Amino acid sequence: MPVLVNIATLATCRSEGGQDDVGVIGDAALVWVGDRVQWVGRVSGLPARFAGETRVDARSRLVVPGLVDCHTHTAFAGWRAHDFVARLRGASYLDIARAGGGIQQTVDATRAASVDDLAARSRAHLWAMAALGVTTVECKSGYGLDVDNELKLLEVYQRLDAEGPLRLVPTCLAAHVVPREYRDNRAAYVRLITDVLLPAVVERRLARYCDVFVERTAFTVAEARTILTRAQVLGLGAKLHADQLSDGGGAALAADIGAVSADHLEQVSAEAIDRLASTGVTAVSLPLATLYLRQEPMPARRLIDAGVPVAVATDFNPGSAPSYHLPLALLLACTVQRMTPDEALKGATLVAARAIGLDHEVGSLEEGKSADFAIIDAADHVEWLYHFRPNACLATYVRGRCVFGGA
Amino acid sequence: MPVLVNIATLATCRSEGGQDDVGVIGDAALVWVGDRVQWVGRVSGLPARFAGETRVDARSRLVVPGLVDCHTHTAFAGWRAHDFVARLRGASYLDIARAGGGIQQTVDATRAASVDDLAARSRAHLWAMAALGVTTVECKSGYGLDVDNELKLLEVYQRLDAEGPLRLVPTCLAAHVVPREYRDNRAAYVRLITDVLLPAVVERRLARYCDVFVERTAFTVAEARTILTRAQVLGLGAKLHADQLSDGGGAALAADIGAVSADHLEQVSAEAIDRLASTGVTAVSLPLATLYLRQEPMPARRLIDAGVPVAVATDFNPGSAPSYHLPLALLLACTVQRMTPDEALKGATLVAARAIGLDHEVGSLEEGKSADFAIIDAADHVEWLYHFRPNACLATYVRGRCVFGGA
Repeated sequence: MPVLVNIATLATCRSEGGQDDVGVIGDAALVWVGDRVQWVGRVSGLPARFAGETRVDARSRLVVPGLVDCHTHTAFAGWRAHDFVARLRGASYLDIARAGGGIQQTVDATRAASVDDLAARSRAHLWAMAALGVTTVECKSGYGLDVDNELKLLEVYQRLDAEGPLRLVPTCLAAHVVPREYRDNRAAYVRLITDVLLPAVVERRLARYCDVFVERTAFTVAEARTILTRAQVLGLGAKLHADQLSDGGGAALAADIGAVSADHLEQVSAEAIDRLASTGVTAVSLPLATLYLRQEPMPARRLIDAGVPVAVATDFNPGSAPSYHLPLALLLACTVQRMTPDEALKGATLVAARAIGLDHEVGSLEEGKSADFAIIDAADHVEWLYHFRPNACLATYVRGRCVFGGA
Repeated sequence: MPVLVNIATLATCRSEGGQDDVGVIGDAALVWVGDRVQWVGRVSGLPARFAGETRVDARSRLVVPGLVDCHTHTAFAGWRAHDFVARLRGASYLDIARAGGGIQQTVDATRAASVDDLAARSRAHLWAMAALGVTTVECKSGYGLDVDNELKLLEVYQRLDAEGPLRLVPTCLAAHVVPREYRDNRAAYVRLITDVLLPAVVERRLARYCDVFVERTAFTVAEARTILTRAQVLGLGAKLHADQLSDGGGAALAADIGAVSADHLEQVSAEAIDRLASTGVTAVSLPLATLYLRQEPMPARRLIDAGVPVAVATDFNPGSAPSYHLPLALLLACTVQRMTPDEALKGATLVAARAIGLDHEVGSLEEGKSADFAIIDAADHVEWLYHFRPNACLATYVRGRCVFGGA
């Protein structure tokens, strides 16, 4: 039963309170038993029964809940650095997609890669995330776009979740774009997803969520409704890539069908914000994608002020967000989107856990939750997020075990 | 006489050619003798006389010249995380300065700190920069604002330059803001700089440059001209913080007096761009400051297209740019300012060396120059800058000696 002591500040990110309430405790202690948080509070209030337990020294640093990256496309083959250069020269995301670059190019490379190859690449990314203090990662398929290759990607995630060190939450994103083979028969691809792929995914327990990219270059609201309704009947939760490049009605659909999250929302309308607020959908902000695509960001301030919880994630993928640096996404959420450091931190912990339906298990340091936490080289979370460094994380614990660094 | 082989690509950043000419060599080799580059080229052309020399394996990675961070305020005491939060809540740079926060607060903390304390803090930052591939750092005073404390800061830099691992280029920025004690007698502070401080700095060889912050909250063009003209007579080069928060005539003054660089330039006018182009002043872009201050960036595309060389630096300081992550500044130069990866890389190597008058010595990998280089975990510089990671640098060499990592 280890007792972490000498914690300068501990941000509990507790379940009660709003997005700006990170529940900071100064001079804190944290006790865990096995994989569970047993007690958290000021060291002066540490119960006598823990007095003789093994002490771990946080060296007067900040402790935060393990970060939750609730939107990534971690398994893929091949980079797309030339898309980056094309965009700097003025090509739009739609230009690149229409010219046959973009997602379809990654699909070709990913289809050609083996499970072992994809697992090796993804493993390296996940260990690098763990070193940044990340402990839970939502991972989407979506570069297979046929039954075998979508299942292959989800198998990669299943293997890496079992292997550790991180907790993965797999999402089937077969409806990422319409694959080349179905361009003249979109309905047949939608039927392939609803009638063949999703039943197979559910039978093999390969995903918890189904996601659809609603966009002019991808799927219509009607197609998304068909796919996600079927997914919900089969027992999967629904997520949406919504209103990224145009106001395409994705956020309204998310509210309509009770999706757990609506992600991107750079172009979200005022009406859709009200719908999200009244239905309890979590918005997921992806400021790295906004930066790389040179877009106006999601209006996070307006969403939060309207009562919509806003998670912050990386969108890690080889095209529009080739970085898994979640603390950088948090810095951008502050500087570009004017979220406060408190709101940003809660957006990458408890609110992010809500966006993947895991807030009963992770996202805050409270009794009974998983002992997932990071020790950060800063006096408090504001100093951490403001003084951007390559990596300020000193140690990462998942389920009570140290997986990176040390105290 | 080590020979670095198995280099996937080597960007020479050669002296000839424009800002977008980084002189990429595939399948390259690099030979150095002592602290000097002896030969660089395709490995197939390696002269027979080097065949028997010690080989160092770059493991099929990218090699670039050691990065040059040509604008930093590295020596200071105290952080200013609360300025960061105030700005997110709507306070402007001028608001914070007028309310007694900002630079003056760092001045108070820095005056109270000893040389040893400042050296310890700065040393940690410099080693962290070295780990990112940086080999030369311009370092400004400017948090002392009286004779003794300005000299103290420059002594810190002198000590750390002698100690290594990095090459420091010290700049006297006594004209950063008017200190509290002289607020009602600005002319006396200007005279203190010109008549007492600068002669002492020159006598003790404590700086190569003199810099002035031309801004409504700092110094007028007339005051800057007085200070910099005096500095030039004493043998120092001139630099300017110009047109950051308003178009205050700083760039025009830089052109007028033949400054080596004009830095910031977020608000530079079209006329001033033409003046800079015709006089050969190097512009220094500081996109991290732009991000933290939520400003429109320097119009780097217009400057480059007009023929002005544009360096990219961090502006590392505890207020407006609390990060020494130069590769992040390069990513922002690409995404926010639409510089190409080639232009950004040359902006942090050869062009940055020009901005501190050291382009005869560092900034490119050419015969006779200092053997300063970094081995980067990427196939080429585009992949490096696009796939942002905490740190992609595998090894850093300064004057032919490995100071970080290894090949």
